[in-house]
Amino acid sequence: MTSRLYVSVSGSGDAPPETRSLAEEVGARLAAADVVVVCGGLGGVMESVCKGAKSAGGTTVGILPGTNRSDANAFVDIALPTGLGESRNALVARAADALIAVGGEFGTLSEIGFALKIGTPVVGLGTWELQRRGRVVHAINAADSPAEAVDLALRLARGT
Amino acid sequence: MTSRLYVSVSGSGDAPPETRSLAEEVGARLAAADVVVVCGGLGGVMESVCKGAKSAGGTTVGILPGTNRSDANAFVDIALPTGLGESRNALVARAADALIAVGGEFGTLSEIGFALKIGTPVVGLGTWELQRRGRVVHAINAADSPAEAVDLALRLARGT
Amino acid sequence: MTSRLYVSVSGSGDAPPETRSLAEEVGARLAAADVVVVCGGLGGVMESVCKGAKSAGGTTVGILPGTNRSDANAFVDIALPTGLGESRNALVARAADALIAVGGEFGTLSEIGFALKIGTPVVGLGTWELQRRGRVVHAINAADSPAEAVDLALRLARGT
Amino acid sequence: MTSRLYVSVSGSGDAPPETRSLAEEVGARLAAADVVVVCGGLGGVMESVCKGAKSAGGTTVGILPGTNRSDANAFVDIALPTGLGESRNALVARAADALIAVGGEFGTLSEIGFALKIGTPVVGLGTWELQRRGRVVHAINAADSPAEAVDLALRLARGT
Repeated sequence: MTSRLYVSVSGSGDAPPETRSLAEEVGARLAAADVVVVCGGLGGVMESVCKGAKSAGGTTVGILPGTNRSDANAFVDIALPTGLGESRNALVARAADALIAVGGEFGTLSEIGFALKIGTPVVGLGTWELQRRGRVVHAINAADSPAEAVDLALRLARGT
Repeated sequence: MTSRLYVSVSGSGDAPPETRSLAEEVGARLAAADVVVVCGGLGGVMESVCKGAKSAGGTTVGILPGTNRSDANAFVDIALPTGLGESRNALVARAADALIAVGGEFGTLSEIGFALKIGTPVVGLGTWELQRRGRVVHAINAADSPAEAVDLALRLARGT
Repeated sequence: MTSRLYVSVSGSGDAPPETRSLAEEVGARLAAADVVVVCGGLGGVMESVCKGAKSAGGTTVGILPGTNRSDANAFVDIALPTGLGESRNALVARAADALIAVGGEFGTLSEIGFALKIGTPVVGLGTWELQRRGRVVHAINAADSPAEAVDLALRLARGT
Repeated sequence: MTSRLYVSVSGSGDAPPETRSLAEEVGARLAAADVVVVCGGLGGVMESVCKGAKSAGGTTVGILPGTNRSDANAFVDIALPTGLGESRNALVARAADALIAVGGEFGTLSEIGFALKIGTPVVGLGTWELQRRGRVVHAINAADSPAEAVDLALRLARGT
């Protein structure tokens, strides 16, 4: 029963429409692949990815920073208030077999960093690019479309 | 979609058969009431409550202490590795609208204490009894059967 | 440099004067024994134990629930805001070689439960008493005075 | 007593000698400014910054991922095992008035992301550089030397 893959989708609570649209397609494609979609449970990209997943009959989990379940967006199936504040970002990264970052601000950067640290593969769609001392570090697998992002994430999550 | 009640069930990973049997009935009754069942995701009482919930078509969530999803028992639908160790007990208590403690050792005591601290109602079935300076403290609502435990938990979760 | 013992002192933020007085003596005695005193960093018992420790030239650590260092009482040397809310209680229990509970409400009960779960010895001074199915469980080492509480805690912390 | 500034220093547990040397100077300069130095408590950059701080008579705090105080390096004054694994990175970022990243791998990236998310100013010394969609994002205040890093961090921590 626990053999389904889990993919966390990270992105800003205050994202522009085109980013939200990408997130919605990511959600729909993940759900079509029978993947459990995990996110931070709030608005913006989090809401869009859940909306997309539900449109395709998927399962969505929201790991909330606050203490009220009602903070969850309307497309979250399993809403878990943690009371941990932004530290819950570590849980979002930990809960998944792969992380897809869609756009994203600093919270997304923290989830990317955690995921990379603990060995969760990361796929990026219009998100952060990393350099160190002037050299590009190819740690985030860049995708050009929701389809490519989901394909990459599934392959990486399966380790194939 | 988030209007379902959530009840966490707390109990030892190493419980005797009669306690596990109580937990299984608790799980089945919670599922029959359309409640999302949350637990620590491992064996013993946690496994039994999930088994009972699944037998009645319910939804089960396991908030795991370790980093491997495969630590979850076979009856967990949504298995979330946290990597937080025993500190995840605070999340089990936080995630719920009420907590039912079935039997239980020290981990259960920590979840009871945490639930009481944050105002989550606690129902006990053969669990800890609290005294302070020789006086009983009636903070845990004692139930005599799984049916009574679930009824009490639902009433307290609804605040009615 | 890390060979000093650490003892966490747990108690209510809203304790009566006689309990605060006990806590202050506990703090002074721990400091006199060169023990690092850890607590939740706020008022009540937490403030009194820090006040006592500082009166004896000790070192005090406050692990705060909120995000503001200024929430710490005036006798905390090292004030660490966590933003974890009440979940920081698990850290208070985890940080210590022994836990002394002085009086205490439900937050203290959660710290006692965590400490017992993870094997940190617990000493109680006018705190919770545990029973299960009508039988006393002697998991909390009861002390009758601050002197006895500190002696017990130090012996248990040293494993002697 | 809590009016001292706290600066967290982030960096890899497996850093080359020149990076460790920078960290040691950062530690010494922070201590000379009477700043409490916070870090993850382990080896590499964490050890070097503590060594530097102690050489200048400073105070060092190590927030450890594991459950054993003895994991702390020899220059940690206050060693706090958390049992939270890599999630403790959020606490390292949260505990400080500013964060200095020295070199650094993915763990450092997670601390940078978390600090930026919660509004803790970040100074970088030979660390990650951020871009988004081909554009540099100037969120990490780049310094060219330990002296500059500490000066910048202190100014940012004071909000001046």
